Amino acid sequence: MIEDKNQGRTSLSELGEFGLINHLTQYFKIKNPATVKGVGDDAAVLEASEKQTLVTTDLLIEGVHFDLSYMPLKHLGYKAVMVNLSDVYAMNGEAEQITVSIAVSNRFTLEALEALYAGIQLACDTYKVDLVGGDTTSSNKGILISVTAIGKANKGDVVYRSGAKETDLIVVSGDLGAAYLGLQVLEREKQVFQVNPNNQPDLDQYTYLIERQLKPEARKDVPGLLKELEVKPTSMIDISDGLSSEIMHVCSQSKKGCKIYEDKIPLDPQVISTCEEFNLDSTMIALSGGEDYELLFTVSIDDFEKVKGNPNFSIIGHITAEDQGMNLVTRANQEIELKAQGWNALKEE
Amino acid sequence: MIEDKNQGRTSLSELGEFGLINHLTQYFKIKNPATVKGVGDDAAVLEASEKQTLVTTDLLIEGVHFDLSYMPLKHLGYKAVMVNLSDVYAMNGEAEQITVSIAVSNRFTLEALEALYAGIQLACDTYKVDLVGGDTTSSNKGILISVTAIGKANKGDVVYRSGAKETDLIVVSGDLGAAYLGLQVLEREKQVFQVNPNNQPDLDQYTYLIERQLKPEARKDVPGLLKELEVKPTSMIDISDGLSSEIMHVCSQSKKGCKIYEDKIPLDPQVISTCEEFNLDSTMIALSGGEDYELLFTVSIDDFEKVKGNPNFSIIGHITAEDQGMNLVTRANQEIELKAQGWNALKEE
Repeated sequence: MIEDKNQGRTSLSELGEFGLINHLTQYFKIKNPATVKGVGDDAAVLEASEKQTLVTTDLLIEGVHFDLSYMPLKHLGYKAVMVNLSDVYAMNGEAEQITVSIAVSNRFTLEALEALYAGIQLACDTYKVDLVGGDTTSSNKGILISVTAIGKANKGDVVYRSGAKETDLIVVSGDLGAAYLGLQVLEREKQVFQVNPNNQPDLDQYTYLIERQLKPEARKDVPGLLKELEVKPTSMIDISDGLSSEIMHVCSQSKKGCKIYEDKIPLDPQVISTCEEFNLDSTMIALSGGEDYELLFTVSIDDFEKVKGNPNFSIIGHITAEDQGMNLVTRANQEIELKAQGWNALKEE
Repeated sequence: MIEDKNQGRTSLSELGEFGLINHLTQYFKIKNPATVKGVGDDAAVLEASEKQTLVTTDLLIEGVHFDLSYMPLKHLGYKAVMVNLSDVYAMNGEAEQITVSIAVSNRFTLEALEALYAGIQLACDTYKVDLVGGDTTSSNKGILISVTAIGKANKGDVVYRSGAKETDLIVVSGDLGAAYLGLQVLEREKQVFQVNPNNQPDLDQYTYLIERQLKPEARKDVPGLLKELEVKPTSMIDISDGLSSEIMHVCSQSKKGCKIYEDKIPLDPQVISTCEEFNLDSTMIALSGGEDYELLFTVSIDDFEKVKGNPNFSIIGHITAEDQGMNLVTRANQEIELKAQGWNALKEE
């Protein structure tokens, strides 16, 4: 994912709206038999199915959700797709199609949009989803991307946020906090660059963190892994706003409480070392950092043997009665009430 | 659709993102049995179906697609839904669900968004569609709305742009050009207001034009009307960018030519009188104006008897061989090549 910095300068208005859409989507091949008609008509047409349809949408805005000074456009395109696929997988489904709408100011060239669509295409190819529609228009300022993902799941397989039961185990995939720390590293390097543009940053010790921030991968594998293990989660959600905020969604929609154990929260060694360097509390980062795009789910305690020891999963706590509240049990065995301090896209600047 | 100008000033950050979504969507009721789960989980869940699924999306941006100085937010919400439903009807389908994502700068209050959502809700109620998801975030400048509409059609009923055959009749619903002229009237009144804010405009003679611009209605009725008439169009498209641009899409995708007869293009009397007043050519306005949200379709000449004389439809021409080109036959019986001079969202300002 290396961008050509020596970009050409083809003005978007030279192609016009339809020319532009055709140009950007010409190399996208339809991969799913369920996609009857993709880009090019009033609406996409998807084949009838015995499965339920899943629909989710997310909006990414320059200056709010990303900073192009360290987010290459190809990565932005890839990430915009991941954010949405993650929501489909969080329903225990398979993603099949996306629509992508973009608005760009006239500072963007055709070559810039080609880089963006190269990232979208790489995501589509890797995750076997079809681009089936969208809209392309101009904006007064900056770039924004609105993606809608469409998926499928057997009726009995769909997992909601609301199904957690008392004594259920709370499980997360992968590890947490790295994407947020990657952002902190990139922000710091931006500051350094602004003071001394000749400084060559040495980012070797942060490679995992930066990759998690710039090229997150949605957990397409988890629904399949769970089927193999013959485990159907009782509830599931993706971790986009931080573990704390997500577990609170599950508990409030399930009308339950929870206990999360600080020493069980999975952290990558780079998260631990970088937290020490930045003088940050790694538990707080995992709880509130966001953008991990891991899955958080609950399983019956009867499934303990199937889940424990699986390298993809960490059991981090359990569901309690609602009146027990939502609590973190610290390493010192103290109980602290969980607070949602995750990302708030509407906070005052 | 009268807005309370004496709006309250509740800051959006007081509610936070999830509080805001809950607040804005609390009075939306699910109307379609196919909507299993709407707002409130990672993705919406739609029931399995023997029908094909239709998906379409459009993005509306302040300063590009609308001007809030004469577009009340309630109307904007309504129109954003119409633009998308129109695309579903243009596939000969029924719209069932929408997702709505918005980004707003901090100049917008909670009361402003309530007005926007009141328009969205009115559209949902009137057109029997369910709001099933979306995203709400902040923008650096202005407001934008991204809507995705989802619909259904029996497999054999879907009508593409590409099916027009030689000798097919070209038909439009309703009348054309009024929405564009409505915009011209509103733009003129804005100029007058800027010079003299005490001037009270008399807009009685433009009511239809202004309504077509500010509160367009998608042609939900047309697929049903065609079924009653036992007519299946060979091709169909909605008229959002002007008749000329749309007929050219049909012809190029069907690899055909066409003849459109100037004297057959349906015009409302207000279009004719206002074109005279503004010194505009009414045919040019109908061909290039856009935002009519009428349907343009082709039917076999065998269906002539079923369509002719129907007050909803006007037969305006016929499909020819591709090498005949795309032409307008004027009242003076001259043939002029059609040009797409419709609205281009990517034009340089």
